[in-house]
Amino acid sequence: MASLSPLDPVALAQSLIAAPSVTPATGAVFDVLESALVPLGFAVERFIDGEAPDGPVENLLAVRGGSGKHLGFAGHLDVVPPGEGWTTGAFEPRIHGELLYGRGAVDMKGSIAAFVAAASAVPADAGTLSLIITGDEEGPAEHGTRALMRHMEVRGVTPDMLLVGEPTSVNRLGDMLKIGRRGSVNIWISVPGKEGHVAYPHLADNPIPRLIRILARIDAITLDHGNALFQPSNIEVTNLHVGNPATNVIPPVAEARLSIRFNDEQRGENLAAMITALVQEEAPDATVTAKISGEAFRTRPGPWVDLVAGAIRDVTGLEPDRSTTGGTSDARFLHVLAPIVEFGLCNATMHKRDEAVAIPDLHALTAIYRTVIERGLAK
Amino acid sequence: MASLSPLDPVALAQSLIAAPSVTPATGAVFDVLESALVPLGFAVERFIDGEAPDGPVENLLAVRGGSGKHLGFAGHLDVVPPGEGWTTGAFEPRIHGELLYGRGAVDMKGSIAAFVAAASAVPADAGTLSLIITGDEEGPAEHGTRALMRHMEVRGVTPDMLLVGEPTSVNRLGDMLKIGRRGSVNIWISVPGKEGHVAYPHLADNPIPRLIRILARIDAITLDHGNALFQPSNIEVTNLHVGNPATNVIPPVAEARLSIRFNDEQRGENLAAMITALVQEEAPDATVTAKISGEAFRTRPGPWVDLVAGAIRDVTGLEPDRSTTGGTSDARFLHVLAPIVEFGLCNATMHKRDEAVAIPDLHALTAIYRTVIERGLAK
Ligand SMILES: [Zn+2]
Ligand SMILES: [Zn+2]
Repeated sequence: MASLSPLDPVALAQSLIAAPSVTPATGAVFDVLESALVPLGFAVERFIDGEAPDGPVENLLAVRGGSGKHLGFAGHLDVVPPGEGWTTGAFEPRIHGELLYGRGAVDMKGSIAAFVAAASAVPADAGTLSLIITGDEEGPAEHGTRALMRHMEVRGVTPDMLLVGEPTSVNRLGDMLKIGRRGSVNIWISVPGKEGHVAYPHLADNPIPRLIRILARIDAITLDHGNALFQPSNIEVTNLHVGNPATNVIPPVAEARLSIRFNDEQRGENLAAMITALVQEEAPDATVTAKISGEAFRTRPGPWVDLVAGAIRDVTGLEPDRSTTGGTSDARFLHVLAPIVEFGLCNATMHKRDEAVAIPDLHALTAIYRTVIERGLAK
Repeated sequence: MASLSPLDPVALAQSLIAAPSVTPATGAVFDVLESALVPLGFAVERFIDGEAPDGPVENLLAVRGGSGKHLGFAGHLDVVPPGEGWTTGAFEPRIHGELLYGRGAVDMKGSIAAFVAAASAVPADAGTLSLIITGDEEGPAEHGTRALMRHMEVRGVTPDMLLVGEPTSVNRLGDMLKIGRRGSVNIWISVPGKEGHVAYPHLADNPIPRLIRILARIDAITLDHGNALFQPSNIEVTNLHVGNPATNVIPPVAEARLSIRFNDEQRGENLAAMITALVQEEAPDATVTAKISGEAFRTRPGPWVDLVAGAIRDVTGLEPDRSTTGGTSDARFLHVLAPIVEFGLCNATMHKRDEAVAIPDLHALTAIYRTVIERGLAK
């Protein structure tokens, strides 16, 4: 067995940040990760899936070992666009005091670096580790983790337990992990009418009052009251659009968009059908288009959740909340493969300008991940 | 007295159409009109008012005679933009069969040509005639007829009766004249909220549900039931705007626009105050902006209305409806000066592609206007 010379997670995080990778990502950032993994004994496979506009997306599957327990770590190297107003370049990693700045510092190049550093400190024959890393988690995710899962099936890569490195901590590293996620469905409503002049309303048919009635009814809906693991399901109207520049014209169409985040008492398909029926009661000729980003899921309480929580407690002294709050992640796809827990850095600066990770957190996360690997593979 | 050689209204209409004059208008189209009026003995004054974007606007005041009764004819030489899809050029007048095509053919270069032709057939000493012609009736009308009215006051030009040449006929020339107009007020409603992520609705404040409640209440309003002269007042929501491209974002602001066309039982100011109060009950920090285009007005039954209706009947055989329907016109300003009647060509093609006037209608309208002038000045 080769002697272990543990990687520095800070140096690897810097190298990953320095490779711009706005979603969908390919190329250089994957080269950096592959260069770190190969010396640690990982067999690395990379492939590209999809075409513009949703792609091309690069995906990476790295496996070390082939016997014993199998722990899979999932994450993404793509990042959201940096936006304006950064103090220095979003892709020029910069350390100032205890903070490492750069797009992806917490979401989630930092946690990928921590996991690789943790793996570097664990003997290669301790069991099987895999990294399931996509270049599209922040975008439509059509050609990312789902393509990786097909590839894993072909290669027979079947983890016994899954860890997702999303930034789940809130105020302090270790205060929250995720054991499930709500589902998400976006719904587009388009109500047609008949264009005309406001002075002759009897010759026109304004679609806006029908849309208002539809949205007033939707606003009155209570889907459920939540449960022990989940918040109540929630409907937000996120957009209204008519696009009529003329003050004296009754417009031909009125549109709205909904976002429903729902718990495990709902199904995306049923929600879409319920909204469609309601809309068509008020406007039989309306069109309703639904896109389900993911169904709600949860990992039931059990040894894997307890193991990750215990590692967090032992390193940080905190007892993490076992939460299902927040947005979606690729756990919505992966949860079908094995018990799944999400745990990572503090998310206060994710998707914001001057995204930054505390360097002590990077080291502590490395220690947590190392403990998780050791205990997980030893089970 | 010079002998009369009546002008051809068709030739003059063609010359006016051939001078492009999309609102606001200045220059060539006024040159054409002035060239027609001066040989008929009119003293012509032209002036320009306003600056971009609402101006510059050219206005023309032409007066002939100075004693006896005074009939003022009001109209506009600006036209709405031609838009796409014309069979031939919108500013290339073309006669095909009985129709003269071109932007402004009915609204309202054709009727201005008819009035000038009618005036050419009436002796200059029959009484006083004035033409009150603006280059901005189709636009914001800030620098058009209102500026002309100030100019008329300075010059002491005070008609005893007013005729507006808007295309009031519907199916056949002579089937409708206007003895009043509804008022018009546009209202912009902006409801602020607090932007946030749909996964964390408790950290955001979606303004859309408040806007929906506001619009549902507005939709339930019955302003009045109309009366013998006017249709019921009517509120239309003409636009909704949020402009949120992100499906996972709760937007910071939601906006709507209303158009209220109201009869003489309402006042624009009161309507704006009523809507403002309703909006602020639901959303105290909302902003409401109202722009009153004109108050409702009507010319009471009397000899001037009867005179115009009689001329129409004698030329066409039709008894015109005495209506207050339709949009606004500059009569909303002029009605304070004298009893006012609007009568002109058929409006089926106004503001549309391939706008056209029937040449027999141009001649019949000239005959009607001539009869109106003769009887009006003889009174
Ligand atoms: Zn992420
Ligand atoms: Zn007009």
